[in-house]
Amino acid sequence: MAEITPAAPAARTRPRRSWWGWGAEDRALPDSECVALGALVPGAADTPLPVPDVRSVELPKPRISPPASLAHLMSDAPQDRASHTYGKAYRDVVRALRGELGAAPDQVVYPRGEQDVVDVLDWAAGADVVVVPYGAGSSVVGGVEYRGDRRGGVVSLDLAGLDRVLDIDTVGRAARIQAGVLGPDLEARLRPHGLTLRHFPQSFEFSTLGGWLATRAGGHYATLLTHIDDLTQSLRVVTPVGVNESLRVPGSGAGPSPDRLFLGSEGTLGVITEAWMRLQDRPRHKASASFVFGDFKAAAAAVRAIAQSGLNPANCRLLDPGEAALAGVAGGGRSVLVLGVESAHFPVDDRLAELATLARDHGGSPAGGTAGRPSAGGAGDDSAAGAWRSAFLRMPYLRDALARMSVISETFETACTWGRADALYEAVHWDLGAVVREVTGAEGMINCRFTHVYPDGPAPYFTVIAAARRGSELAMWDEIKAAAMEVLGAHGATVTHHHAVGRDHRPGYDRQRPEPFARALRAAKGALDPAGILNPGVLFDGERSRAGRTPPARRGQNE
Amino acid sequence: MAEITPAAPAARTRPRRSWWGWGAEDRALPDSECVALGALVPGAADTPLPVPDVRSVELPKPRISPPASLAHLMSDAPQDRASHTYGKAYRDVVRALRGELGAAPDQVVYPRGEQDVVDVLDWAAGADVVVVPYGAGSSVVGGVEYRGDRRGGVVSLDLAGLDRVLDIDTVGRAARIQAGVLGPDLEARLRPHGLTLRHFPQSFEFSTLGGWLATRAGGHYATLLTHIDDLTQSLRVVTPVGVNESLRVPGSGAGPSPDRLFLGSEGTLGVITEAWMRLQDRPRHKASASFVFGDFKAAAAAVRAIAQSGLNPANCRLLDPGEAALAGVAGGGRSVLVLGVESAHFPVDDRLAELATLARDHGGSPAGGTAGRPSAGGAGDDSAAGAWRSAFLRMPYLRDALARMSVISETFETACTWGRADALYEAVHWDLGAVVREVTGAEGMINCRFTHVYPDGPAPYFTVIAAARRGSELAMWDEIKAAAMEVLGAHGATVTHHHAVGRDHRPGYDRQRPEPFARALRAAKGALDPAGILNPGVLFDGERSRAGRTPPARRGQNE
Repeated sequence: MAEITPAAPAARTRPRRSWWGWGAEDRALPDSECVALGALVPGAADTPLPVPDVRSVELPKPRISPPASLAHLMSDAPQDRASHTYGKAYRDVVRALRGELGAAPDQVVYPRGEQDVVDVLDWAAGADVVVVPYGAGSSVVGGVEYRGDRRGGVVSLDLAGLDRVLDIDTVGRAARIQAGVLGPDLEARLRPHGLTLRHFPQSFEFSTLGGWLATRAGGHYATLLTHIDDLTQSLRVVTPVGVNESLRVPGSGAGPSPDRLFLGSEGTLGVITEAWMRLQDRPRHKASASFVFGDFKAAAAAVRAIAQSGLNPANCRLLDPGEAALAGVAGGGRSVLVLGVESAHFPVDDRLAELATLARDHGGSPAGGTAGRPSAGGAGDDSAAGAWRSAFLRMPYLRDALARMSVISETFETACTWGRADALYEAVHWDLGAVVREVTGAEGMINCRFTHVYPDGPAPYFTVIAAARRGSELAMWDEIKAAAMEVLGAHGATVTHHHAVGRDHRPGYDRQRPEPFARALRAAKGALDPAGILNPGVLFDGERSRAGRTPPARRGQNE
Repeated sequence: MAEITPAAPAARTRPRRSWWGWGAEDRALPDSECVALGALVPGAADTPLPVPDVRSVELPKPRISPPASLAHLMSDAPQDRASHTYGKAYRDVVRALRGELGAAPDQVVYPRGEQDVVDVLDWAAGADVVVVPYGAGSSVVGGVEYRGDRRGGVVSLDLAGLDRVLDIDTVGRAARIQAGVLGPDLEARLRPHGLTLRHFPQSFEFSTLGGWLATRAGGHYATLLTHIDDLTQSLRVVTPVGVNESLRVPGSGAGPSPDRLFLGSEGTLGVITEAWMRLQDRPRHKASASFVFGDFKAAAAAVRAIAQSGLNPANCRLLDPGEAALAGVAGGGRSVLVLGVESAHFPVDDRLAELATLARDHGGSPAGGTAGRPSAGGAGDDSAAGAWRSAFLRMPYLRDALARMSVISETFETACTWGRADALYEAVHWDLGAVVREVTGAEGMINCRFTHVYPDGPAPYFTVIAAARRGSELAMWDEIKAAAMEVLGAHGATVTHHHAVGRDHRPGYDRQRPEPFARALRAAKGALDPAGILNPGVLFDGERSRAGRTPPARRGQNE
């Protein structure tokens, strides 16, 4: 049953990461393309913000002298510190471009195994050093950026060295995987066994298993196994008071789930070092089809019928007219619904036909598709879906290019019940649209897609694009973002469906989180992290959380 | 969207509950049938233990004088106190038959609404009174039986009065439901809307929504939506420090899930008063088929293939040879696999055919079935499945009859990964079988069925039947049960898949629960229930849990 897979050679050919923007350094758009892109957005700047040389950006002097026992794991090289200062939100990119790196960690720590993590936490607790767990830094909510001023200093704990698949159980379809593995490396190691984790967030290339777990990430698929939570069989977490390893079973009713406390804990309760993850057979049969709708509400009704049908399509992505136009898959104010079905075992033509019936019943017109041909992991995809996918993967690079042209380009995502979905869509479109106009003075664009759909409601994902005044980009975006959180709250929608809370979502999260649960969670934090060193400011108010003391019911601000 | 459903008249025709045994008083087997049943078990007693008259059993004098403001909610009538002393485990029935009711609560409290629950907790916290939340008392793990000796006394908080469906969202298929509603009453109120919660535990008739939620109950269906956890949209919980209401959304990644802390909390962190539950359309298409296997391991392999196929059958119940013989569905050492598929929207013949292929591929022979005919909620069932179901619902009454004949008749259930399933089955069959022989001196019977199956492992459910020495039944069963917990632990199987922890599973649970999580949970308990009045002894050591103090890492015994 058990077999050890060595660290993959893939790691050696990994592209050099951008320290200031998304993904691979060499995939950033050149200046000329930035200008061409900016020209499409009325009011954008004429010239791109330059990308500073990381060797010349000003970093504060490190406050931490590495202890002898850990010095070999630490780096205070500018490239390391600069690239670990922020996540990859729009506001992170803008600040990096401006060379604003005052919040850089004093040291970046690269553990090579779990014992190193234990040792680092022991040292940090004693030395009053803040520890910010770091997967691959794709947070878009300020999740890896410490904003306080702890005197002991701050280390970023980069888990890239824990990237092995330790054990594969082909009978029970599960694998024991270290938390620092990147998506492509993980899939490369599972593929020879015919298995897949089948978790493909947009950040797939540049995010890690541990990050997915700590933030309750959502994958590419629309129904059933969407959140990483449900793919988790057991977790191994290093907390400051000991290692927490849950029992590896397919289901249990023994008290509240231990794993569910750590899933979504965003590095505040412990450092996830390993997990047994549930795997799936690689799909052999795929089919997809797209439908266009003249009316977004009719399309949403089709999606609701599909989500409540029990057919559970792998893909069920609805693009509103703006999103469809932006992705180049439809124009003329039409919405597009992309449906996909997959199976490792049986042909899927019948399922696609049943889904198509529901789409047509609600006024959808076929926009092409490919039914049921076996595919060895290929796309098996219709043209709208293909066009959508390539736009999807390129999006973060386009976002960076727009940021350089002083164009706000950012997203927020949520989930709500079906009964509230239309009103939420309208409110974001009109009310938040008005805020964008008011704040930026530009006629911005707010698009929407449904990324995941549940029988009880959709997960709408909104994109905001609007030219900003150079130098005021962050203030403008922060104002829009605050208004967006207000709109979500007013419509009973969650502050985040799969981007996590971090520091940026604290206002909405604090309103949404029931107060007794907040008390319980703070108490749990105090029990597991008595020195309060783990990622302060995320989920909880920053700085020392004292076990047994109950802070005031509602906090005014972030740290 | 919202509509109010009045309390159903069903409540008025509800059968009178047995105070000592399972279910309806008038469905208990008469003495003559007890004797006939006992005659089938070698070594059983000749005469049934008499059922004591509840008016003549000895109860301790109530230590609590109801406060004036709550007196109208309280009863110390013998019938009330006696029927709230225990759950419905084998050991509960034996003790009730013996008239051992020294642990009876001092008062039974019947709140009529949520404010009454708030008032009771306020009073109890001030008066140092233990509160044991009580749904319909079907616990089989000592979940509703306080075993300490708090001086302030003990009340059983019976939520039967909170039995309304408050709101139905037919668009998003969800309902806001009070916690005290019984299964049949709930379904009766959803049926006119074409909806169902579709959660049918064996205890369905005599258990409540709140009990299901507090214990992470498992329903009848084999795959996908098995545990009540996944049917839960949001919870409303009265804790001693305030009411906790989570946001009602289809999915969220905003921090650790608040609901998952209360699901499985078994009345130790608060009293669940309401929940928004996800509903489903009532199935219109059903089909089922049964297969016999000469070899249990081959049958288990078929089940594994089915569980990993993505076909997600509604029913996938595997009976081992003993279980199949006991239920009268097969003999000759053959195992039986009952498969069922359902859909509210599409015919299911194809799905059943695909499942049948997998069963046959693993050596199964068809034992009859009915494919795909539409059915208005009827059985749509093959004969083996039908025979199984009627035996299933009668089982607890047979258990009571056997208990009266001094025959141990009890179950335990678990879940493990597929790689461990065969060894666990063998160990229970042979090693625990040897313990049963040694302890009772009788050739007992241990049967197994898989009640739920997951892609990563099955949930085996074991039944133990063995004649005991009259007067020593409990000591004998407790010895067997302790050995069973050892076997489960040694094979990496959970101490409970859906029966919860209560007080009886504490030894196995304490070994299984990771220690850092135990600390976090105790801290959460201290924050939510600072006076330690809620169900002491369940999940945690009994008596005062002091916020902020960390008890020793491992406890020696239960209270």
